[in-house]
Amino acid sequence: MMMPDLTIEDIFSREKFIFIAGPCAVESEEQVLDTARFLKSLGVNFMRGGAYKPRTSPRSFQGLKEEGLKILAKAKDETGINIITEVMDSDNLSTVTKYADILQIGSRNCQNFSLLRRVGELNKPVLIKRGFGNTVDEFVQASEYISNGGNNQIIMVERGIRTFESSTRFTLDISAVPVLKERVPYPIFVDPSHPAGLARYVEPLSLASVGAGADGLMIEVHPDPQNALSDSKQQLNFEQFRLLFDRVNALRDTISKF
Amino acid sequence: MMMPDLTIEDIFSREKFIFIAGPCAVESEEQVLDTARFLKSLGVNFMRGGAYKPRTSPRSFQGLKEEGLKILAKAKDETGINIITEVMDSDNLSTVTKYADILQIGSRNCQNFSLLRRVGELNKPVLIKRGFGNTVDEFVQASEYISNGGNNQIIMVERGIRTFESSTRFTLDISAVPVLKERVPYPIFVDPSHPAGLARYVEPLSLASVGAGADGLMIEVHPDPQNALSDSKQQLNFEQFRLLFDRVNALRDTISKF
Amino acid sequence: MMMPDLTIEDIFSREKFIFIAGPCAVESEEQVLDTARFLKSLGVNFMRGGAYKPRTSPRSFQGLKEEGLKILAKAKDETGINIITEVMDSDNLSTVTKYADILQIGSRNCQNFSLLRRVGELNKPVLIKRGFGNTVDEFVQASEYISNGGNNQIIMVERGIRTFESSTRFTLDISAVPVLKERVPYPIFVDPSHPAGLARYVEPLSLASVGAGADGLMIEVHPDPQNALSDSKQQLNFEQFRLLFDRVNALRDTISKF
Amino acid sequence: MMMPDLTIEDIFSREKFIFIAGPCAVESEEQVLDTARFLKSLGVNFMRGGAYKPRTSPRSFQGLKEEGLKILAKAKDETGINIITEVMDSDNLSTVTKYADILQIGSRNCQNFSLLRRVGELNKPVLIKRGFGNTVDEFVQASEYISNGGNNQIIMVERGIRTFESSTRFTLDISAVPVLKERVPYPIFVDPSHPAGLARYVEPLSLASVGAGADGLMIEVHPDPQNALSDSKQQLNFEQFRLLFDRVNALRDTISKF
Repeated sequence: MMMPDLTIEDIFSREKFIFIAGPCAVESEEQVLDTARFLKSLGVNFMRGGAYKPRTSPRSFQGLKEEGLKILAKAKDETGINIITEVMDSDNLSTVTKYADILQIGSRNCQNFSLLRRVGELNKPVLIKRGFGNTVDEFVQASEYISNGGNNQIIMVERGIRTFESSTRFTLDISAVPVLKERVPYPIFVDPSHPAGLARYVEPLSLASVGAGADGLMIEVHPDPQNALSDSKQQLNFEQFRLLFDRVNALRDTISKF
Repeated sequence: MMMPDLTIEDIFSREKFIFIAGPCAVESEEQVLDTARFLKSLGVNFMRGGAYKPRTSPRSFQGLKEEGLKILAKAKDETGINIITEVMDSDNLSTVTKYADILQIGSRNCQNFSLLRRVGELNKPVLIKRGFGNTVDEFVQASEYISNGGNNQIIMVERGIRTFESSTRFTLDISAVPVLKERVPYPIFVDPSHPAGLARYVEPLSLASVGAGADGLMIEVHPDPQNALSDSKQQLNFEQFRLLFDRVNALRDTISKF
Repeated sequence: MMMPDLTIEDIFSREKFIFIAGPCAVESEEQVLDTARFLKSLGVNFMRGGAYKPRTSPRSFQGLKEEGLKILAKAKDETGINIITEVMDSDNLSTVTKYADILQIGSRNCQNFSLLRRVGELNKPVLIKRGFGNTVDEFVQASEYISNGGNNQIIMVERGIRTFESSTRFTLDISAVPVLKERVPYPIFVDPSHPAGLARYVEPLSLASVGAGADGLMIEVHPDPQNALSDSKQQLNFEQFRLLFDRVNALRDTISKF
Repeated sequence: MMMPDLTIEDIFSREKFIFIAGPCAVESEEQVLDTARFLKSLGVNFMRGGAYKPRTSPRSFQGLKEEGLKILAKAKDETGINIITEVMDSDNLSTVTKYADILQIGSRNCQNFSLLRRVGELNKPVLIKRGFGNTVDEFVQASEYISNGGNNQIIMVERGIRTFESSTRFTLDISAVPVLKERVPYPIFVDPSHPAGLARYVEPLSLASVGAGADGLMIEVHPDPQNALSDSKQQLNFEQFRLLFDRVNALRDTISKF
């Protein structure tokens, strides 16, 4: 199924279902360009990819930094795909802002109020992920730090919370989708990749998210997941993503008639 | 949409999507008969209803006990609907077994190993709910207490776990659906009513469950939820259930073509 | 330090600090008698030991059952030590009641309301452990199922709850000690062995419990922990227990002067 | 009981028990000076007080900022007390560093890796609080972001985690004290005020922390808690703190003889 190119305005109008996809981390020009071309071939017009990576351990791969941003820019130049990438602090905010179409605030920065205030002053869409230790209430209040600065271009992403259950990496709080839709006027997305932890759970969690009423999905896709430098177990390869993409669209078609 | 009468064999064949619906507690003959007739009019052939109620406080309504079972029997006599009702201990096991088509083990008894062993010796389907403090691993091991006795007619129900999030009553662990489907050969159901806690969240959680791959749903339905003696906020009225029923079936139709 | 023999009345008067110690499970006569003699030599007059074991998996050691109770009776006959042992269901209640001085309700039965009602009708002290998925509120309400039957000889035991933290087996909710002391008139004990999961954490958690105001401790002690049939990593050997015992008593002496 | 003035070196030598006390937020010169004089009169030589406050809602009191730091400086000038205050981001790092003797990283910034890296490059002690959604493992790895930069003057503070239990504000993970002491060479403190949520639970949690082996305590103290601009229910008044101080010291004396 081929879809017309969606724009950032389509995200905020909430009339069409949106896919954001791409690798956990920018690793090389080839990896990023291959992914961008693949996504555009499906009509997916939003690519994620981390250049600055907030890793639990200082010994893990920390991202290619500005070099990574330049690779994302090249992919955008060639394909026209919109770029979503993470900003980790005020220091790299201006650099990231130059390259990103949508700024991402990661789960660990959901209550980094200094950073939230800073992106609230920009005229640039912000995608904020729920902190894995944060309640829905706190997540809503985090969004207020952004909107208080005048920036209402906010995308909120449920990505799983910490619980006692260990068969998945995090527990996707699927109920947060309808709860958030009552409380804020923003598009509510789900990231099924991080709670899944394993690629084979990403599709059922994606279909569940559509059922729960999500406005979009943010999914980790990599040309060669086994050799990814981070999150290798949960990234989908192109074929897996293509199947998921078709199924999600079919489900969404059914729901749009309700 | 009218469906042909489903049988208990249909639950275990896992080819058709199954609804179990009915009130939290049996309160009166009128309440139960109205519900049974309504469900049968939709083609729903499985009715839940608690006669013995495990309530957190000894001062809460504890159920009509055997009188409640007799009311359920009357509904079955009149409409032919199959009865699912909870067994709380070895003492009332033989009584409940006389009346029930499917025995329910509640969340608080998920690790009541004595009771599990007893129902494992019966030739009667057992629906077991996940303990809200239990991992998927423990839930699977609980099912082994039943199957070890020779009883493999087991239905496993995800119904939400305890987490720090308080915007819903429990956190529906939607990922448990695909995880359980990998680990056990039994039908995996979802009870969206208890995690929702509020009627308006039951539909999105139901559609999410279908997306995640559930084989069936167990939903609280009451002719007059506001005046229910327990769980009044989360029970659906007939009209809400009818809408949910149609939407779930539509979604399921789409998925069955994948 | 040698203490005079304490009686069950001393538990409920809450004037003296109480130790309950002994193996996770009754395994042999020698094991139990050795432990009873050792405990009595310190002045510890309460021995735990499970004859009916609620194990997560049906393939794990399930206890010696009535044979185990007879071994406990022999230890009591010889040493005069009081016996605390677990009752799992109504079926074995009368058998266990014959042998036990104090009936134990395990964590997984904290909301087995049928069982709670039954022990509430007896004239026999009941030690109830908090369910690892239960709130303090629910634990208090569980105690009301017992007291409602007329039995106020209740000992409540904090033993850790389920959380996302995995460096210990459960998370000891130390705050539950002062919270429970406000809400119920019963002695509040702590079981540090199950949350610890490892023997070397049992002493710091025991001393913490004394600091928090616990009225007593329930600790797993085994003559040869490495070869125990269950909980082998968390049981203390005699020497470890002796050291803990002296330190807890010293701390308690200091606190009793506040 | 009067103690000799302790220095920052005493914190890292871990031979003496350390108290850090003071208001949640700097509110006025009088409030801070009164507190500093009171603490010094007891021999407490470390005062906390927030000038930049990370508040969940943007509508809550956000602190007096640099004006607050100047008030802390005045208190230090007059009494000689050491100042611990929070740094929220790279922007205010150099300002805060001028005034603080010890930099505090708050719970919500425990995985703000950019900030951790920056304080790791300073020659200034850093007190880092555990994120309430973080495991002990993640907390240890957060400390490595600081030590990797060459700064080993680290104080780690357990302050409660998010769980399903709601009778206290957070669940103090008392087991984290012995676990952390095995894994890192740094002093391990406990903040009992934030998990308690209510002043009357602060003393039992403090005594528990001493029992568990904590090297120090960080406690919220306010001259007039009822009228505090934040955390009013959990701050101790001077009389409550004095009593706690004496009892903690008595307990610590007993333990130091073990």
